[in-house]
Amino acid sequence: MASIDARIAALKAELATLEAELPPPVSPLAPAGFPELPVIAGVRFATAAAGVKYAGRVDVMLAELCEGTQMAGVFTRSTTRAAPVLRCEEALAAHTESPDKTGKFAILVNSGNANAFTGGRGFETVDALREAVAKALDCPAEKVFTSSTGVIGEPLDHGRIANTLDGLKATLDPASSASAARAIMTTDTFPKGASATVDLGGVPVRIAGFAKGSGMIAPDMATMLVYIFTDAKISQSVLQKMLWLENASTFNCITVDGDTSTSDTLLLAATGQADMPVIDDFADPRARAFRAALQRLMRDLAQQVARDGEGATKLIEVRVTGANADGPAHRIAMSIANSPLVKTAVAGEDPNWGRVVMAVGKAGERADRDRLTIKFGDILVAENGWVAPSYTEEAGATYMKQSEIVISVDIGLDSGKATVWTCDLTHQYITINADYRS
Amino acid sequence: MASIDARIAALKAELATLEAELPPPVSPLAPAGFPELPVIAGVRFATAAAGVKYAGRVDVMLAELCEGTQMAGVFTRSTTRAAPVLRCEEALAAHTESPDKTGKFAILVNSGNANAFTGGRGFETVDALREAVAKALDCPAEKVFTSSTGVIGEPLDHGRIANTLDGLKATLDPASSASAARAIMTTDTFPKGASATVDLGGVPVRIAGFAKGSGMIAPDMATMLVYIFTDAKISQSVLQKMLWLENASTFNCITVDGDTSTSDTLLLAATGQADMPVIDDFADPRARAFRAALQRLMRDLAQQVARDGEGATKLIEVRVTGANADGPAHRIAMSIANSPLVKTAVAGEDPNWGRVVMAVGKAGERADRDRLTIKFGDILVAENGWVAPSYTEEAGATYMKQSEIVISVDIGLDSGKATVWTCDLTHQYITINADYRS
Repeated sequence: MASIDARIAALKAELATLEAELPPPVSPLAPAGFPELPVIAGVRFATAAAGVKYAGRVDVMLAELCEGTQMAGVFTRSTTRAAPVLRCEEALAAHTESPDKTGKFAILVNSGNANAFTGGRGFETVDALREAVAKALDCPAEKVFTSSTGVIGEPLDHGRIANTLDGLKATLDPASSASAARAIMTTDTFPKGASATVDLGGVPVRIAGFAKGSGMIAPDMATMLVYIFTDAKISQSVLQKMLWLENASTFNCITVDGDTSTSDTLLLAATGQADMPVIDDFADPRARAFRAALQRLMRDLAQQVARDGEGATKLIEVRVTGANADGPAHRIAMSIANSPLVKTAVAGEDPNWGRVVMAVGKAGERADRDRLTIKFGDILVAENGWVAPSYTEEAGATYMKQSEIVISVDIGLDSGKATVWTCDLTHQYITINADYRS
Repeated sequence: MASIDARIAALKAELATLEAELPPPVSPLAPAGFPELPVIAGVRFATAAAGVKYAGRVDVMLAELCEGTQMAGVFTRSTTRAAPVLRCEEALAAHTESPDKTGKFAILVNSGNANAFTGGRGFETVDALREAVAKALDCPAEKVFTSSTGVIGEPLDHGRIANTLDGLKATLDPASSASAARAIMTTDTFPKGASATVDLGGVPVRIAGFAKGSGMIAPDMATMLVYIFTDAKISQSVLQKMLWLENASTFNCITVDGDTSTSDTLLLAATGQADMPVIDDFADPRARAFRAALQRLMRDLAQQVARDGEGATKLIEVRVTGANADGPAHRIAMSIANSPLVKTAVAGEDPNWGRVVMAVGKAGERADRDRLTIKFGDILVAENGWVAPSYTEEAGATYMKQSEIVISVDIGLDSGKATVWTCDLTHQYITINADYRS
């Protein structure tokens, strides 16, 4: 036994050494490449390497938005949210109250340090950065939104970031969204972007956005960091309502590990550069068309975050129907999507529907064991309180080998429904989070 | 790169082969050995190998309780609870309504198959087993409690278990509690037992109990499988109230993975064989003495379950004080104890208090970022919304090397408090649950 133990220790040491030489692996669920994002009139991007955490890594992103832009936002409901989030909330409240069109907006984002739980100094840092951006871009400081992502509880050296502003200003470019998407990454293994075009009363309008997020993902009324831009002309109140509604069925429907970030921020900026009459009524038929396009884009980005879940090898879609209302359906779906036993079973390609039953049972919502129907993809697995007569373990095991798994549960009570997305739970999640200080 | 990949694959293959040769590791947090449990007058145990899942493995436990015994119980609140649990609830309700003293009680437990989500056949199986035990032991079928633990969704062959009853009856022995504790194990790496003696008005009374549980542990008003026996003479209503109250601060305060079993069952049997006047009033001072002893024993067993959490290398105690009430304190403590990011940080011996802040923030309870105080053991880590001036990363890192970690969080609002126990989240949890079909 001792000799086996010694050999195992030697093998593990050699493995660790070799694995450290490899570049960080890209999620096997990543899209083929970063999409070509359209230029949005009125938006310019620039990036820089400020050395926030690592020297030489591009870690700052600046977006400048032309005068007349309207801004909407949703933020984490965490009670320990970070200073930049609290300042963004204040800025959005002021803008909502008086959505005037004078002055440019700006968004400044850094990775490497979340400026979260940094006491009063956290606010000083945000305020200094907002002033510096306002001065560099000649815009009002109250129209500067900042986000920070990375390690919690360490002071953010705002001087390093402020020092990059002149260079950032000089390189602002409408076509730099791809490098902007890269600049905000932390443990992400790929940058996440999506775009859409939509016809609004004969006028073609563009939407483009990007996101970061991989761990600490269980958004609550907001998500990760996501920035979406459009040239549509939409009033602030309509824009905000659209964002809030579409967030509920997209970013609020993903989870990687059930942990909610202190920094979740989602901003949607409408520059109004498209040659169209303003949409200032939510009942305007063009609003419905825009919402549909926005939802597709947001769902795409949300799924990309789940695809880049730390250690993910499978994308899991959980569809719950037949609950007594939509809210309970969402909570049952999240109970399944957050269950470590369901997620490890999927990682092990084990069609372990008993764990799905368990996760429904623990959700605390109305459910009747004997009315549940469970499917893996199109395969009927269980019904009437037991395994379906037609189900075979072989069919289930074959299905679980796919990289995208759909688990459908009908509760059999009423018409409440919800769909959420998550990923499996693997050794790589442990490796990332037992080693990485985030 | 290709050669590194090939070498890594070869190393992993050799590792897997070697590790398969090793016996299943015992949790490093296991007690030195199974404690010497006192004989409880009126209780006899027997065990057998029925071949429920594996041939030759001891997987059935029978406990016979003398006439005059009073029984109390608490069960899972899962909405998908198993047939044996539902029948136990019925049996307990009947006994509570009419706690007569004629006829023996019996407890029959099998491991290897949970008889959960097995439709109408699940009830037929339980009823057949209860009838068989009643016949073998000459006791009323309605006084037979059964529990089943193991795989969900597969039919339980009750004939195999019934066939062992004659042998079980013939070997009933008051001193066989250690083998009884082993018979109910599934993924447990060690059997869990505890005992206490308490003086009740000059009469020495004994309590002994054992438990199983390692994964799917987030009890909700009950827990795992736990059987506790005492020779005290206590009325059913007082016994039930004691069990319910002590459960709230013991088994309901542990979590391994946030997943709640369909089979959680906790039974407390009082044989009344001690030569003492009955305790039939909760205000009796002897009731307080008994409760205190019962609580120590239940807390000991609960902590043993956390110590045997799947893959555990560290026991984590989370103490929350200063919340606006005890309920919120418990939910904040559970939010920390269930956070995969906190648990992987502990596994990696990383004093990552930022993740503790995150977990407080996502709990959905009242909290003020700037009033939080966080300690690791006796080390003050953070206060006033930021890292404490006296804190050093070295002190934190040294503390995290211990095998038992205490995380204390004061919310700074009021006097609500709670303490819960959990374990870290390691590679071994993934290995166990991506491979084992439970």
